[in-house]
Amino acid sequence: MIKTKICVINPATVKGFEADVYMEAKKNISQDTDVIVVTVDKGPASIESRYDEICAAPGVAEMLKKTEDEADAFVINCFGDPGVESAREITRKPVVGAGSTSMGLACLLGERFSIVTVLKSLESISSEIAYRCGALSKLASVRAVETPVLELEKNKEALVENLVKESMDAIEKDGAHVIVLGCTGMAGLAEKVAEGLKRQGHEVPVIDPFAAAVKLANNLAQLKLSHSTITYPKPPEKQRNW
Amino acid sequence: MIKTKICVINPATVKGFEADVYMEAKKNISQDTDVIVVTVDKGPASIESRYDEICAAPGVAEMLKKTEDEADAFVINCFGDPGVESAREITRKPVVGAGSTSMGLACLLGERFSIVTVLKSLESISSEIAYRCGALSKLASVRAVETPVLELEKNKEALVENLVKESMDAIEKDGAHVIVLGCTGMAGLAEKVAEGLKRQGHEVPVIDPFAAAVKLANNLAQLKLSHSTITYPKPPEKQRNW
Amino acid sequence: MIKTKICVINPATVKGFEADVYMEAKKNISQDTDVIVVTVDKGPASIESRYDEICAAPGVAEMLKKTEDEADAFVINCFGDPGVESAREITRKPVVGAGSTSMGLACLLGERFSIVTVLKSLESISSEIAYRCGALSKLASVRAVETPVLELEKNKEALVENLVKESMDAIEKDGAHVIVLGCTGMAGLAEKVAEGLKRQGHEVPVIDPFAAAVKLANNLAQLKLSHSTITYPKPPEKQRNW
Amino acid sequence: MIKTKICVINPATVKGFEADVYMEAKKNISQDTDVIVVTVDKGPASIESRYDEICAAPGVAEMLKKTEDEADAFVINCFGDPGVESAREITRKPVVGAGSTSMGLACLLGERFSIVTVLKSLESISSEIAYRCGALSKLASVRAVETPVLELEKNKEALVENLVKESMDAIEKDGAHVIVLGCTGMAGLAEKVAEGLKRQGHEVPVIDPFAAAVKLANNLAQLKLSHSTITYPKPPEKQRNW
Amino acid sequence: MIKTKICVINPATVKGFEADVYMEAKKNISQDTDVIVVTVDKGPASIESRYDEICAAPGVAEMLKKTEDEADAFVINCFGDPGVESAREITRKPVVGAGSTSMGLACLLGERFSIVTVLKSLESISSEIAYRCGALSKLASVRAVETPVLELEKNKEALVENLVKESMDAIEKDGAHVIVLGCTGMAGLAEKVAEGLKRQGHEVPVIDPFAAAVKLANNLAQLKLSHSTITYPKPPEKQRNW
Amino acid sequence: MIKTKICVINPATVKGFEADVYMEAKKNISQDTDVIVVTVDKGPASIESRYDEICAAPGVAEMLKKTEDEADAFVINCFGDPGVESAREITRKPVVGAGSTSMGLACLLGERFSIVTVLKSLESISSEIAYRCGALSKLASVRAVETPVLELEKNKEALVENLVKESMDAIEKDGAHVIVLGCTGMAGLAEKVAEGLKRQGHEVPVIDPFAAAVKLANNLAQLKLSHSTITYPKPPEKQRNW
Repeated sequence: MIKTKICVINPATVKGFEADVYMEAKKNISQDTDVIVVTVDKGPASIESRYDEICAAPGVAEMLKKTEDEADAFVINCFGDPGVESAREITRKPVVGAGSTSMGLACLLGERFSIVTVLKSLESISSEIAYRCGALSKLASVRAVETPVLELEKNKEALVENLVKESMDAIEKDGAHVIVLGCTGMAGLAEKVAEGLKRQGHEVPVIDPFAAAVKLANNLAQLKLSHSTITYPKPPEKQRNW
Repeated sequence: MIKTKICVINPATVKGFEADVYMEAKKNISQDTDVIVVTVDKGPASIESRYDEICAAPGVAEMLKKTEDEADAFVINCFGDPGVESAREITRKPVVGAGSTSMGLACLLGERFSIVTVLKSLESISSEIAYRCGALSKLASVRAVETPVLELEKNKEALVENLVKESMDAIEKDGAHVIVLGCTGMAGLAEKVAEGLKRQGHEVPVIDPFAAAVKLANNLAQLKLSHSTITYPKPPEKQRNW
Repeated sequence: MIKTKICVINPATVKGFEADVYMEAKKNISQDTDVIVVTVDKGPASIESRYDEICAAPGVAEMLKKTEDEADAFVINCFGDPGVESAREITRKPVVGAGSTSMGLACLLGERFSIVTVLKSLESISSEIAYRCGALSKLASVRAVETPVLELEKNKEALVENLVKESMDAIEKDGAHVIVLGCTGMAGLAEKVAEGLKRQGHEVPVIDPFAAAVKLANNLAQLKLSHSTITYPKPPEKQRNW
Repeated sequence: MIKTKICVINPATVKGFEADVYMEAKKNISQDTDVIVVTVDKGPASIESRYDEICAAPGVAEMLKKTEDEADAFVINCFGDPGVESAREITRKPVVGAGSTSMGLACLLGERFSIVTVLKSLESISSEIAYRCGALSKLASVRAVETPVLELEKNKEALVENLVKESMDAIEKDGAHVIVLGCTGMAGLAEKVAEGLKRQGHEVPVIDPFAAAVKLANNLAQLKLSHSTITYPKPPEKQRNW
Repeated sequence: MIKTKICVINPATVKGFEADVYMEAKKNISQDTDVIVVTVDKGPASIESRYDEICAAPGVAEMLKKTEDEADAFVINCFGDPGVESAREITRKPVVGAGSTSMGLACLLGERFSIVTVLKSLESISSEIAYRCGALSKLASVRAVETPVLELEKNKEALVENLVKESMDAIEKDGAHVIVLGCTGMAGLAEKVAEGLKRQGHEVPVIDPFAAAVKLANNLAQLKLSHSTITYPKPPEKQRNW
Repeated sequence: MIKTKICVINPATVKGFEADVYMEAKKNISQDTDVIVVTVDKGPASIESRYDEICAAPGVAEMLKKTEDEADAFVINCFGDPGVESAREITRKPVVGAGSTSMGLACLLGERFSIVTVLKSLESISSEIAYRCGALSKLASVRAVETPVLELEKNKEALVENLVKESMDAIEKDGAHVIVLGCTGMAGLAEKVAEGLKRQGHEVPVIDPFAAAVKLANNLAQLKLSHSTITYPKPPEKQRNW
């Protein structure tokens, strides 16, 4: 297998999480893969709305251009896939979003999946990603723990409990067979949520969106595969100022 | 009917078209409706890719905030609906995109419609808008005259000819019953395209996306209707710098 | 803007509502648009079933032929769109139904809509209209106040209350983001229902199907657009007696 | 098996075909089943448009009421299913349309089917029937021999040839695996069309819509099954004049 | 009508039910049709999982080859359609499964249907059959009485009661308009379930999947129709040992 | 990353390819992952029909039971996913099929994909896999080189040429943006096909289904994820002989 290097781009401006993200990425990847983690210079503090997404996307593009030569594949570290579609137009190296990747994986593990995310208000955005990656017919529901992204770290135990509770409802009320955690800020919790569900009688896969995205980026780099230039053609040259 | 005021936001930075846009809007609207036309300060020269769209969206948001108090409804003057979804989160006044509006109208006039746009590379973007506004099951095809936006004005006669040619193919090869012109830079040409098609045996509606959007904005303002706050909730307060 | 004239055809035989309908239409339309209101000579007293619809459709066609030269666009004043599809075959002037029009509008204002109509038994008919105009993927549910059409006028306050109650359930149980009132006999109530919902915490558009249809008819007449002759070809000449 | 009686209602007014229809029905049904054939008193000479359908539907309802006590199940003898939906509201005995029945059967015999009908202008009507009976996802295309219904009898040999030609295109260009003849005036020709296709290398089922409908009516009568009262509730009592 | 002979293949190895199956088949078929009933030599005792299905399918193929010359059409006597798809590749005589047949029939009788089967764990398998026969858009839900196949006979009264209870929930909670019994071991109970539902206010068709399949097999044999060779091409000659 | 072991099961009986398969697997996987390759004892020589699939599935189940304790994840080495669904019921370790995996991956790399497989007759089978894994809305077409599986090795150069030719048609006629090679016997050719397409002007991902499946199996083992027990419940204990 060729040696590859993955670049994780944090699309929100809050700094200080880089080391954690690095550790989480390394945990999920073969040892011979290098990882770098960068954070955008401009954008919103966190991403919880379409407005946040458009504030984040230009910074993602800028950071991608800066780091393009330094890695073989890129992960945009947010479940909302902010700036992923446009980033794919400006580079031929694979760019991977955590939302679409984990939904695609969920489709391969069971009949229907539910997303358990931070805020119910993200439902429309999540459905749109599901449409885009072809997973819509498998999406049972979007549920939320109603905790803002920047407060996820505050009480991890309560968070896991809430994730289990919403996942149980997704399974028993909405017919989910697979659970997708709907925020990369929930990285590292999937196993605990799965255990909680098992204790209550349901043995279902719980997908960590960050781990899924890092794996896919690594796979694509190793397989020398990238997104299609027909779907993502190079943008025409022109003046753009912002 | 109450007197209303529509604000048209040009999301690309090329200036000098404001008077034309104003005239075109006035042509399509009741006399007792006022129109203002503004152009974003920052963004791409024209919008022909996802990358252009994310470059345009922040400027649209900024301009919307500046003009929010001056009008009753807003039209984003581009078929790709750049910044429409995020703009709807930051204002409770109706914000209307030319793409979704004209696709919605097409659904009401016949079994299936085709979009004839500037560049084939816009196909995926157009399908995504169709999905978002529920029109996907009615979309027969996306065709293009392969003329960049900023060259549309150069030879209007040839442009109409090409639009008729692609529309004929859309009807005869793809099964379209309705034609949607896929760029607001084609404003004012729908009638000529319809005539061209009629001369070749097909009497079908040809939708001018700019006219459709201006009409809908005016209707919404008069009916005191706007987009749903459940689909478009107000973004949480937070730091955003770009 | 050209001066246009709209003809509203009441497809049920109960007379005496023409003045009210006229006022309601004028309220929703630019002052320079003329309105006439006519009622069919033959048909059912009200329209609440497929059987009523087929009883109504021939009368609609007859009345349309009588009035075709007197107006620029036609509104069939019933949410079930009775006779709309066949009427479009016999005239090249735009014919608009209240059901399809308001569903098309709902698609442009939010992720999913529910219809709140008079009788639950109209569900299948409503879904079929949604299919026909491409809105099916956005239809969350059909709910009903279980009040026959001809009793809607009896107690408007109770009616609004029931509409709010069912709309609340549509939002909270069925996931609706937009409400469509499912009977043109509910004309003029949308604003009150919206207020009732807002008081209970949901700021969503509530669509008045009659107002939406009158607006669209007026728009089409002004834009010189009509339905497609490919979808609605002229019926062959032949003997038809009924 | 219980002895049953089927009533075939011709929804177009052209008389003189009753004996042929009777023979065709008897050919396709167990000997212990009785058949009667009746023709509506009012309606169009043939059914080739939505306008024809609404002209036919009231006559179908009238005839159904007249004959309701004389048979155990009813077949409306037209591929467009005119008046079938409304007829199901006014009787609890099974009412069967040739269009929906043959599409339902086609779904059980192969991956996708095409309809080969009289006039291309019937495409939208056919798709709507396919939607209604759940067969839309299996419908590959609608093709036509462009022969009006009342001229089908003129040259049967040429008709079969044209049916084979269009069926070949349906198979080779549209991906059809099953052919449905799209007019009950084509009754008795399916076997010849199948032979023609076989000679050209394709062994596929060719469905005779009249035979399929007669079979289903007989089956339902024998199984004591009928349509659902939830989908087809009894219309409320009211005045209806036409 | 030609005289035909139907062969029912029991795909599970439990013997001793042949006489009952024979009686049930004869009850549902014209007297001039012969019936034979055979049971596979190898396979599972009953069919309640995908694993049971693959254990059953080779035995079905073997039995079909043995009996191919003795009948005009074949019914695989199980709602899961085990081995139906592959059987259709190895014979040109019609092979009919009880699951797809009864779902196809349900689509013709109402807006949406629910399946009430033995075990909830069969949901995914049932949905897949619905997809395959085009009925997926009409499938409201899959419910179960949670009784293993081989215990169905133990207490028929309790079984009917449970079927009624789940059917009521299907109608009132899931929006079903038609009920399909989801196991051929429930043959003969449809009428009783329908009566139970009627007593509780719902007059809806309840489909006996075995009766539906026998009818269809008989119809196909009489109409000389079979499945498409394009969907079910003859398998290439090769060595196969199992 | 934990050290894992993948077992590849060849579901067709032709022996002698194990070393090649092993090399191909090792090429696509991190060095610290072990691979074993086994071939079923009973089944068809190759898999090119539904009949082949049911002949193969019991042998796959048998081999899986034999090797279950020796590996952490299983790959069924065939694009038709024979026996994958049933295998998932009998083990809690991840079982991966090449067809569903590569279709899921294709969905993440572009708007629509086409499958280029060995025989056109596999179209229906491929669509069914696409349905099952949620990829159907992204499937543009299934094309074939019309070369039986066991002749793929004969002339690799001609095979690549044919794959390029069909892929070009998939792109230019069917609208594919991504190509999926539809047979694991084509392992190792993706890069050459991609180069051929690039020389003709199309830079699109070409997916090697075997490589994709091996990667996914490895990912799942490392992430400790497996398929859902709700979709794939454990089969009830019972007698099964075959």
